[in-house]
Amino acid sequence: MSQTRRNARDIYPPTGTTLNAKSWMTEAPLRMLMNNLHPDVAENPHELVVYGGIGRAARNWEAFDGIVAALKDLNEDETLLVQSGKPVGVFRTHADAPRVLIANSNLVPHWATWEHFNALDKQGLMMYGQMTAGSWIYIGTQGIVQGTYETFAEAGRQHYGGDLTGKWILTAGLGGMGGAQPLAAVFAGASCLAVECDETRIDFRIRTRYLDEKAHDLDEALEKIARWTAAGEAKSVGLLGNAADIFPELVRRMEAGEIRPDIVTDQTSAHDPLHGYLPQGWSVADWRSKQESDPKAVERAARASMKTHVAAMVAFHEAGVPTLDYGNNIRQVALEEGLENAFAFPGFVPAYIRPLFCRGIGPFRWCALSGDPEDIRKTDAKMKELFPQNTHLHRWLDMAAERIAFQGLPARICWIGLGDRHKAGLAFNEMVRNGELKAPVVIGRDHLDSGSVASPNRETEAMKDGSDAVSDWPLLNALLNTASGATWVSLHHGGGVGMGFSQHSGMVICCDGSADADRRLERVLWNDPATGVMRHADAGYDIAADCAREHGLNLPGIL
Amino acid sequence: MSQTRRNARDIYPPTGTTLNAKSWMTEAPLRMLMNNLHPDVAENPHELVVYGGIGRAARNWEAFDGIVAALKDLNEDETLLVQSGKPVGVFRTHADAPRVLIANSNLVPHWATWEHFNALDKQGLMMYGQMTAGSWIYIGTQGIVQGTYETFAEAGRQHYGGDLTGKWILTAGLGGMGGAQPLAAVFAGASCLAVECDETRIDFRIRTRYLDEKAHDLDEALEKIARWTAAGEAKSVGLLGNAADIFPELVRRMEAGEIRPDIVTDQTSAHDPLHGYLPQGWSVADWRSKQESDPKAVERAARASMKTHVAAMVAFHEAGVPTLDYGNNIRQVALEEGLENAFAFPGFVPAYIRPLFCRGIGPFRWCALSGDPEDIRKTDAKMKELFPQNTHLHRWLDMAAERIAFQGLPARICWIGLGDRHKAGLAFNEMVRNGELKAPVVIGRDHLDSGSVASPNRETEAMKDGSDAVSDWPLLNALLNTASGATWVSLHHGGGVGMGFSQHSGMVICCDGSADADRRLERVLWNDPATGVMRHADAGYDIAADCAREHGLNLPGIL
Ligand SMILES: NC(=O)c1ccc[n+]([C@@H]2O[C@H](COP(=O)([O-])OP(=O)(O)OC[C@H]3O[C@@H](n4cnc5c(N)ncnc54)[C@H](O)[C@@H]3O)[C@@H](O)[C@H]2O)c1
Ligand SMILES: NC(=O)c1ccc[n+]([C@@H]2O[C@H](COP(=O)([O-])OP(=O)(O)OC[C@H]3O[C@@H](n4cnc5c(N)ncnc54)[C@H](O)[C@@H]3O)[C@@H](O)[C@H]2O)c1
Repeated sequence: MSQTRRNARDIYPPTGTTLNAKSWMTEAPLRMLMNNLHPDVAENPHELVVYGGIGRAARNWEAFDGIVAALKDLNEDETLLVQSGKPVGVFRTHADAPRVLIANSNLVPHWATWEHFNALDKQGLMMYGQMTAGSWIYIGTQGIVQGTYETFAEAGRQHYGGDLTGKWILTAGLGGMGGAQPLAAVFAGASCLAVECDETRIDFRIRTRYLDEKAHDLDEALEKIARWTAAGEAKSVGLLGNAADIFPELVRRMEAGEIRPDIVTDQTSAHDPLHGYLPQGWSVADWRSKQESDPKAVERAARASMKTHVAAMVAFHEAGVPTLDYGNNIRQVALEEGLENAFAFPGFVPAYIRPLFCRGIGPFRWCALSGDPEDIRKTDAKMKELFPQNTHLHRWLDMAAERIAFQGLPARICWIGLGDRHKAGLAFNEMVRNGELKAPVVIGRDHLDSGSVASPNRETEAMKDGSDAVSDWPLLNALLNTASGATWVSLHHGGGVGMGFSQHSGMVICCDGSADADRRLERVLWNDPATGVMRHADAGYDIAADCAREHGLNLPGIL
Repeated sequence: MSQTRRNARDIYPPTGTTLNAKSWMTEAPLRMLMNNLHPDVAENPHELVVYGGIGRAARNWEAFDGIVAALKDLNEDETLLVQSGKPVGVFRTHADAPRVLIANSNLVPHWATWEHFNALDKQGLMMYGQMTAGSWIYIGTQGIVQGTYETFAEAGRQHYGGDLTGKWILTAGLGGMGGAQPLAAVFAGASCLAVECDETRIDFRIRTRYLDEKAHDLDEALEKIARWTAAGEAKSVGLLGNAADIFPELVRRMEAGEIRPDIVTDQTSAHDPLHGYLPQGWSVADWRSKQESDPKAVERAARASMKTHVAAMVAFHEAGVPTLDYGNNIRQVALEEGLENAFAFPGFVPAYIRPLFCRGIGPFRWCALSGDPEDIRKTDAKMKELFPQNTHLHRWLDMAAERIAFQGLPARICWIGLGDRHKAGLAFNEMVRNGELKAPVVIGRDHLDSGSVASPNRETEAMKDGSDAVSDWPLLNALLNTASGATWVSLHHGGGVGMGFSQHSGMVICCDGSADADRRLERVLWNDPATGVMRHADAGYDIAADCAREHGLNLPGIL
């Protein structure tokens, strides 16, 4: 098989009710793979890159075509295996087994470095799967909006009495996920200054209504921020620049008493020193071409710039500004570059998200395979009906419906947990069955979820019992989802924090309206968040142990 | 839960036809867990150590009791999760799903070191699962005899025209697996000098008929070897001593023209520098106590001794003696200690085993849950009947029946591959159904198998396409076995080559005589070896591609 990585083809998922595959169970992964590469969804679809640096949906275009052909032909008792984005086998299983099993970017630990990965990737032997890129459940920036919103809102509660009016957030990176930051800040009531070095990314975010304005120099951006915060308005500006230049300059201005951000974070793709972080003093064009011609020089320069960048974040932290790592591993790089206090400020998970994980709450999401936004409107309404007491959820659904432009197949994200997820799944399946929805929906989640990831610099940072690095848990999660009958299951290494730093698993399940799907949904959407509660109960979190008891989980060695 | 690691209890698996659990599907893992700890099977059962240094069947005695209780209570639509030897959850799945899912010793790559593991192990958060210890399909030393026999026989074919009469093999280590070496050498027609530092291990091997004689000094041992080889007799001697002393001394004697071994290898537990290798000049008692009181000193001294040991092996290799690493990672340690040409001699897999893996051939095994040796006699006969042309197999079965003493539940190992395994499984299930066998049997395999492991210093050393470290393959294998309906499935890290150096998966399936079991056996025992053929076809081995075509495998991106 040849290995074409660049191709001018535009991919759109089929919509409507006509099947291209033999059943909805295989039509679903087909549409979702294609949706990941939809021009409105993927960051660089012609190179199969969905988001997060080089996170791909398929290894190369031949592999993409091979997966599509295999899915179209797959029977209801067969399972397709995908190895780092390439279809490698079709095997007889049974109807209650997953239709697709995926393993992306996994390397034996001693060899789990960017250097070794990049060599294999270049040879055509591997692919970077990120979290939801290679597992076909990325739904555009919306997928991350609520998580970012929850984080900012929780920071507001912890540090500013729950009111971010007149406050502003400093960050960088407006890529596939980072682009959600300005909108999430505004949802949370704050203004936002986001530094981004690639003007096309700023423009894209303005076009898709995630960002309000653009600035070409710092003074201009700060002037806007000053105006908005004074007026108590929540608005956002993207500043064209390099974060490694701008952050230290802002520290100088803060120390001179001129300005003071209220929250500081960052979402450059620092997890990938070769493709993810523009070195200081380099042009974007130079950077892109040197990634091919002189990768070592790129990495060296990028890592040095990250150290400067993190040093500035530490300075904000030391000045008392709530500062958080947003899961891109930038502290680790700075530490390796010799910045000893790189981990002075916390990651967002231990700071704000873990209490949710303890109850199995995380980025639950679903997507309408019909392509009809009306189907999502109806599921939004169903969610409100199912959970009448959850006013937080209602507010989110209203803001999302009003402000979030769908990208590709219409989708919705809601952070809900154990005890709620299977209810939503069964309700949606009923809506498919009785024709309320035009076509089946798929339900999935990010790999960043309560039971699905081991990532000591992010999701499992500072676990109570010190078990941050134990990756038995995500592996058990993947095995159990396979045993429970998810429609596709994936096991990835790397993801948002890069090679060597995490292992995680994904699952997606299709509601085709059948009674079989009812049984699977009830199992999978219960068991999957339950493994998160189990993992946190084992680590000693009382919230998780209480949640497990409340829901009657059977956790023999734990409770 | 408290964490008792030492306990004087003796564990024996139940035998006969009375169920202790609710069905044979849960009785099977119950008996096999207990069988792993049978006093005749486990190396150190009172500390739950089965083999391979610290490879355990359960994390501690409370966890053992918890697993037993959970298995006794488990229903046919439930699945027990085991995390590093501890029962952590019981979840609703379905009859065609595995009854137990196991993940042992897995760490996020950047933290996948002995240091980090040992710290977690000490805290009671982890357990070392080795390959078949934590996955409950170790069957005593027999399990390794045939693999070792095949390796020595193949070395004989490649280097000595297929005739090892009058030849002798030098090795070290007579532990759980290494203890198979003298018998395998004798089966292959050669004499054997095995250096072992722990006299109890030598005595144990003599008692169980794996070893013929014992010597307390080198001259005495060499005198026996000289006598046997001169007489064309194949016999074995265990020499009490430290390999790091004896091997260099033998190099000196070889260089002085006094002696010359015909094959050199080693099976000390070098993969575990803290527990597995006695440093030069230390007593065994000293070594054991310092493992607790001064682990750093033990590791330092052991690693230095391994370097000396490997340097001697390199000298044999350079003198033209066929020398091989037997998968204990000793070359890697020597390399790290500064022995630059540590990898001068090959591992046994690329040298002798890979052509078998290309056809899905590997250490297939089964075990009679009745406890009755007669059941194994009948299955041996059935194997001969099923495969009348395979004279190699017939010879092995005859030698095994004559010379191999069962340890614990009667069991048999046979290296067979794709196309044969499912036939054996269906035939055994039929024998259970029609009452020819007294009780159900389980069928499993080592994690060292064709599709189940990524281990660049052993099973996947020097792969044709350079994909040695890609661990997507064993993960897919575990997911597919789960989807196909194996009775229990495991995912381990570490194993025989130690922390950071391998990832692998296991599967065991129970033949309870039912029609449901027929369907599962046909799928699992086809798919499992097929993933090995797939993995080797993808790496570019013609034998594997031919085998895939011959068996009509559907490998979309590969063939
Ligand atoms: N919650 C989480 O765990 C979470 C959520 C979102 C993102 N992340 C992490 O955040 C990072 C960003 O994700 P993404 O999908 O947006 O990646 P991306 O690659 O799509 O976007 C990164 C953006 O940063 C910009 N950038 C790079 N270097 C810069 C510099 N020096 N100054 C200013 N801008 C610069 C790039 O131009 C790009 O637009 C990743 O590391 C991801 O793993 C984590
Ligand atoms: N085919 C394979 O891949 C394969 C097969 C068998 C064993 N192995 C590897 O071989 C090793 C041995 O396995 P095991 O189950 O027998 O382990 P074990 O721990 O039960 O036995 C190791 C033996 O080596 C002895 N020993 C330690 N240091 C010594 C020294 N300096 N001199 C002489 N003897 C010494 C110990 O006393 C012990 O009896 C492991 O690393 C295992 O992973 C690999």
